[in-house]
Amino acid sequence: MLNTWKTTLARLPQNAFLIVLATLNFAFPVAGQNSGQAPDAAFIRKIYDQALRDSRCYPWLEDLCLNVGHRLSGSPGAEKAVQWSEAVLDTLGLDSVWLQPVMVPHWVRGAAEQVTASTGKKGENLQLNALALGGSVGTGGKAVRGEVVEITSWEALDALNERGIRGKIVFYNRPMDPTKLHTFEAYGGAVDQRAHGPSRAAKYGAVGVLVRSMGLRLDDFPHTGSLRYDSTYTLIPAAAISTLGAEQLSALLRNSTTPVTASMQLNCQTLPDVLSYNVIGEIRGTEFPDRVILVGGHLDSWDVGHGAHDDGAGCTQSMDVLRYFRQMNYSPRHTIRCVLFMNEENGLRGGHEYAREAERKGEFHVCAIESDAGGFTPRGFSFDGDEAVINPFFEKVSEFEELLEPYGLQLKRGGSGADIGPLKGQKGLLSGYRPDSQRYFDYHHTAADVFDAVNKRELELGAASMAALVYLLDKYGL
Amino acid sequence: MLNTWKTTLARLPQNAFLIVLATLNFAFPVAGQNSGQAPDAAFIRKIYDQALRDSRCYPWLEDLCLNVGHRLSGSPGAEKAVQWSEAVLDTLGLDSVWLQPVMVPHWVRGAAEQVTASTGKKGENLQLNALALGGSVGTGGKAVRGEVVEITSWEALDALNERGIRGKIVFYNRPMDPTKLHTFEAYGGAVDQRAHGPSRAAKYGAVGVLVRSMGLRLDDFPHTGSLRYDSTYTLIPAAAISTLGAEQLSALLRNSTTPVTASMQLNCQTLPDVLSYNVIGEIRGTEFPDRVILVGGHLDSWDVGHGAHDDGAGCTQSMDVLRYFRQMNYSPRHTIRCVLFMNEENGLRGGHEYAREAERKGEFHVCAIESDAGGFTPRGFSFDGDEAVINPFFEKVSEFEELLEPYGLQLKRGGSGADIGPLKGQKGLLSGYRPDSQRYFDYHHTAADVFDAVNKRELELGAASMAALVYLLDKYGL
Repeated sequence: MLNTWKTTLARLPQNAFLIVLATLNFAFPVAGQNSGQAPDAAFIRKIYDQALRDSRCYPWLEDLCLNVGHRLSGSPGAEKAVQWSEAVLDTLGLDSVWLQPVMVPHWVRGAAEQVTASTGKKGENLQLNALALGGSVGTGGKAVRGEVVEITSWEALDALNERGIRGKIVFYNRPMDPTKLHTFEAYGGAVDQRAHGPSRAAKYGAVGVLVRSMGLRLDDFPHTGSLRYDSTYTLIPAAAISTLGAEQLSALLRNSTTPVTASMQLNCQTLPDVLSYNVIGEIRGTEFPDRVILVGGHLDSWDVGHGAHDDGAGCTQSMDVLRYFRQMNYSPRHTIRCVLFMNEENGLRGGHEYAREAERKGEFHVCAIESDAGGFTPRGFSFDGDEAVINPFFEKVSEFEELLEPYGLQLKRGGSGADIGPLKGQKGLLSGYRPDSQRYFDYHHTAADVFDAVNKRELELGAASMAALVYLLDKYGL
Repeated sequence: MLNTWKTTLARLPQNAFLIVLATLNFAFPVAGQNSGQAPDAAFIRKIYDQALRDSRCYPWLEDLCLNVGHRLSGSPGAEKAVQWSEAVLDTLGLDSVWLQPVMVPHWVRGAAEQVTASTGKKGENLQLNALALGGSVGTGGKAVRGEVVEITSWEALDALNERGIRGKIVFYNRPMDPTKLHTFEAYGGAVDQRAHGPSRAAKYGAVGVLVRSMGLRLDDFPHTGSLRYDSTYTLIPAAAISTLGAEQLSALLRNSTTPVTASMQLNCQTLPDVLSYNVIGEIRGTEFPDRVILVGGHLDSWDVGHGAHDDGAGCTQSMDVLRYFRQMNYSPRHTIRCVLFMNEENGLRGGHEYAREAERKGEFHVCAIESDAGGFTPRGFSFDGDEAVINPFFEKVSEFEELLEPYGLQLKRGGSGADIGPLKGQKGLLSGYRPDSQRYFDYHHTAADVFDAVNKRELELGAASMAALVYLLDKYGL
């Protein structure tokens, strides 16, 4: 069956229009009682054996975390991470390894933030652990001060309006919803405060913003992350405080008979853009070298902790996927490419540059898979893409599912990954690796996102899961 | 449909013979498009909301770990744990809370173990972190010494025979198989060394045994756990060394040109049995008070760490299940009972006593569910039991699965739990709560099994999953 299909395909001219048509033709393995699945099941089992016996992702992650450290775009750490990952890919015997230049933003945190709140009465003050939000303006070497207004809904903010907000510091304190089973949904339901809160407060004349950290656990780690200024309004400084700090500040506001004033000094600034790189390695396809199956993560991280789960895990897993195939002497039909994107956290420049370059070269991405949800136990993959490609895929996907179910993997529709988003125009499949999400927001964008927070087997199982999907897509997908 | 079923049931005399017949009649919810499932789905969602918003299992676990601590059968910790858990259950407004007396073994570790290995050459010696195996004899206040023989298969041991073993210390170093997806399988494939290794070595005249710890991670925590002496042979002392220590000792043996001698001093001993208790609380069933749905874990732990995952997690989850139902004003048809078993780790006396007492009282256990696999993200439940009950259950179980799948739960055949094993003769269902297994053997029976190793949400989701299953069994099962 496969041979027939390959022959048919070989006759198709490989131009852009037919590529889209061909994308519809997933030739899936024959299911169930048919013995056609047995070699696939055996090969996938071999991938997991290789991963659990002899992975490199975990020691690589240790090296990246402890010897490179965090690596915000434009920082010396990011430069070192580019060199480090290129050097590691160079050891894998791939067909090519290269750097793809891209200009990236260069925001620096500067000296540690100073954030306090006080009722003005003796003993009634709080020192708050804080991290400036990525992209925030600084406070010009001195503190910004204002009365604190706690806001838990946009309606409440709009109701207060200029009269209630001007000259004040807005404190966004709407928690992530703990009842969401998938914590990324809880994040999605709260992160608008961090992204849009500063400009929406500035619209009414606020002088600064404090945001409750995007985390479900009550602890004292502030979570940084990007804000998105709306240039219509004044750019005001904004910082995250920990969930514990947010609870304390809220209690201070609730219990105080006098107004609570906050003082915030942020020493961050945005410097001129810097030249950086996506780091790429590939095994060339024997039949369809211009048709790519991509596995990737993002090499940059925030400037606290080690960026272990976010996204050292995804990077080292993606690198190991290529290594597994090399170790197993597997010659893929399609090109299998590992892409370590630069600047996911505060710009997505690497993802955009990668997609532009792929377009320019006339490459088609059969599927791009991103691992950027932490190095936790695999639960499956979500798939996104044009209706013309994703509908036929899901009509037949149960054949894949039958092979992947023994490994706890489910295939569902859903978002994929930020870095691969710009590839959507190619009308190939996009996929997000989906590990268990319960612990992710204990670490995300914090000083707690360190190597020790990653479990070796969970990381390895993720890499194996990605390799198994790549194998099936390489064999049957198009 | 349910009403009809209840009427039919009410007509059945409740004697032992008919109980078995009735056990076959699972009246399952109507599936899929039928709206019959909607109230069940809504109720299960309410359970999860309750669990994720307002659980007690996590603060209870903190209290148990930090203020009671570890609690090996017969120890002051175990006595304190009985008092503690009875007092907590007393706050929940249950219909009854009681202690069930049981005599338990009283093995004590004594002063810290001293285990070293040496080639006799200067600088070529190892100090090994070690924990005597539970139940091991001590070394009588002095060290036992012998040449070390590394053994990685029973065949190799038998081949060496008396000639190769007499007077020596046998070092079992067959690692857990990392390629097993479910780590309990890897454990099952290696733990025979710990359980039977001492007597099988004693059979050939060994003077002591060292066992590589039952863990997949390379670290320096020895894992204790029970041995099972065969009284045919001399009882020789046995201790676990860490996986790292095992690797080091193996390297020393491999590289040494002279025999490697080990010295082991264990200060453990077995004292007379002690009176202890299973701790039990229940909500009485409105329709079938003598038909019990049991949720439980074991209250005892090993004498290192906090016994947080093993099995403080299962205990506090089981207690919270009853609390959720009380909080939600749910009146169960069957009696829902929380049992905190004593002495799972080194005797199973609590489990046996509980089953005897249930038999004596003429209680029938519709289903007994044990949580004893750690407080990790739920993956499902495994079910065991007599063919006459488990076959009809699995014929219809897809209706349950449809309701539980959104919570990541799968229902499979498999083992249940040690403490509930003695209930098997009742021919009800037995079920084991199955969380993700990847991290369990990083903690199991070690000093690393502490409160901080447990994630709040993962623990709560487990309690919610148990409550959801109990609800379905109460409504439809029998």
